[in-house]
Amino acid sequence: MIKITVPATTANLGPGFDCLGMALQIRNTIIVEETDKELEIICQDVQSKYIQKDKTNLIYKSIKKIFDLSGKQLAGIKLSLMNEIPACRGLGSSAACIAAGCAAGNALSQSNLSTNELIDIGAQIEGHPDNIVPAFLGGFAVSCMENQKVFYHNSEPHSNFIFSVMSPAFTLPTIESRKVLPDLFTRQDAVFNISRASLMTAALISGDVELLRHSCQDKIHQPYRKKLIPDFDLIAEKAKQAGAYATFLSGAGPTIIAILDKSNETFTEYMHQCLSKLENRWTIHTVKSSPLGLKIIK
Amino acid sequence: MIKITVPATTANLGPGFDCLGMALQIRNTIIVEETDKELEIICQDVQSKYIQKDKTNLIYKSIKKIFDLSGKQLAGIKLSLMNEIPACRGLGSSAACIAAGCAAGNALSQSNLSTNELIDIGAQIEGHPDNIVPAFLGGFAVSCMENQKVFYHNSEPHSNFIFSVMSPAFTLPTIESRKVLPDLFTRQDAVFNISRASLMTAALISGDVELLRHSCQDKIHQPYRKKLIPDFDLIAEKAKQAGAYATFLSGAGPTIIAILDKSNETFTEYMHQCLSKLENRWTIHTVKSSPLGLKIIK
Repeated sequence: MIKITVPATTANLGPGFDCLGMALQIRNTIIVEETDKELEIICQDVQSKYIQKDKTNLIYKSIKKIFDLSGKQLAGIKLSLMNEIPACRGLGSSAACIAAGCAAGNALSQSNLSTNELIDIGAQIEGHPDNIVPAFLGGFAVSCMENQKVFYHNSEPHSNFIFSVMSPAFTLPTIESRKVLPDLFTRQDAVFNISRASLMTAALISGDVELLRHSCQDKIHQPYRKKLIPDFDLIAEKAKQAGAYATFLSGAGPTIIAILDKSNETFTEYMHQCLSKLENRWTIHTVKSSPLGLKIIK
Repeated sequence: MIKITVPATTANLGPGFDCLGMALQIRNTIIVEETDKELEIICQDVQSKYIQKDKTNLIYKSIKKIFDLSGKQLAGIKLSLMNEIPACRGLGSSAACIAAGCAAGNALSQSNLSTNELIDIGAQIEGHPDNIVPAFLGGFAVSCMENQKVFYHNSEPHSNFIFSVMSPAFTLPTIESRKVLPDLFTRQDAVFNISRASLMTAALISGDVELLRHSCQDKIHQPYRKKLIPDFDLIAEKAKQAGAYATFLSGAGPTIIAILDKSNETFTEYMHQCLSKLENRWTIHTVKSSPLGLKIIK
């Protein structure tokens, strides 16, 4: 029996499309047991309806992938899931499942793969590394993939910042959210994001909050995806009025995250009031970033 | 009389088109004197042939710009130039002239503009901030412009690295080098540079040399501009063989820069031998980055 916890992650962070990510203090817990039955998946929380209970389950597929790579036979598996990370909301629930499955598969198959090897395999399953790296390692991560291998920089998130996570009741699968992106970008828009993502990286490593205001802007995905999210501009404007340094679409959406100074005690209540007047039953949770990544408890 | 020194700067640094820049220990010295004659420009070094000796001179234009902004009258000016930075080679000679002119204009007109205000004005004259910021401040700079204002992160260059500056005898004006760039880029190419520029920023701030190998790659300008530079691929390949972490086109070219470990004592001689067999009379100078930006000596 293996018990694993793994954090939610927010990717893109404004300009950092497919490369910047941050772990948040919202965690899934997964218990993996070897059994005689081929596959049993237990989940009794509110996320249950989003979870595949068959062999298409991402945790199961990731465990199986590690067994296949090690040339070992996977017997029966029971997964017990306690989910805090909402599914299909742009908070890295897929990456959390993949990371947990890879780590569980590594332990059960006694493959002794390194964390970097698991990150490579996880990013291959996910297709991009921006959620996988902070899911495994915690903190802030800059990453890219080259020939199926992930190269990354990982650092402690600066303690000046906290994150207000605002999610609507509807889901937005990444595959749908990718469809609205254009295939071509002007040089101006590409350079806009190259400079802002570089500056955002420097701001998050150094804790320079003023730079966040100017660097956390995007021309690659937000202008297109926000059309799928009613009230995006209104929420961003209200968040700015309430003192947020920056507001961005988390991953492929529909979650919107505001970055705040940790001393901002009025933001959450103010935004709760604003959000309660909107359609789509928005919720708000203000959390710290998580220095702790995936952890095998037992 | 004002004496100013200002460093050469290399911009782009691989993926960081128009936003990453680094000051190098190659410096121009400019003496500015107020005289009765309208304009006199003295330069007796090898760069003299590239230098405008009339009112189109960039130092003069920048001094004039500051006087105009302050509403003061510019009398006669004598400029005495001692240039180490080669002109039109992608080493920030324009930015050095503009920065020196802005600083001289500020002192002579007693405008008391702050360095950040001078950076804003300098970047407006240059059109982009990536050379201007490290020319003023030294070190490594990430910058972007928004509504004529420059936002930047500036840090000490990591002492692990040194820079081998390889320049051919021919010049390549930035305006010519911009013409070969496409107007549109695929999402893949844009995201390639967004991730590499972010990773390059993290690598240069943290001194992580292994990350340099993977982050210092570009799909926005080098694939197009290298066609203007005979032997670009050969030089990059030889530099890699000689132990360079990374090789990139400096600014708009034609200079190629290799980033080395400071302990690499064989690189310069090896590349000197390689370059001497090529056309275009390539020279090589291995220098440190410069923590010191523009300085008013007197």
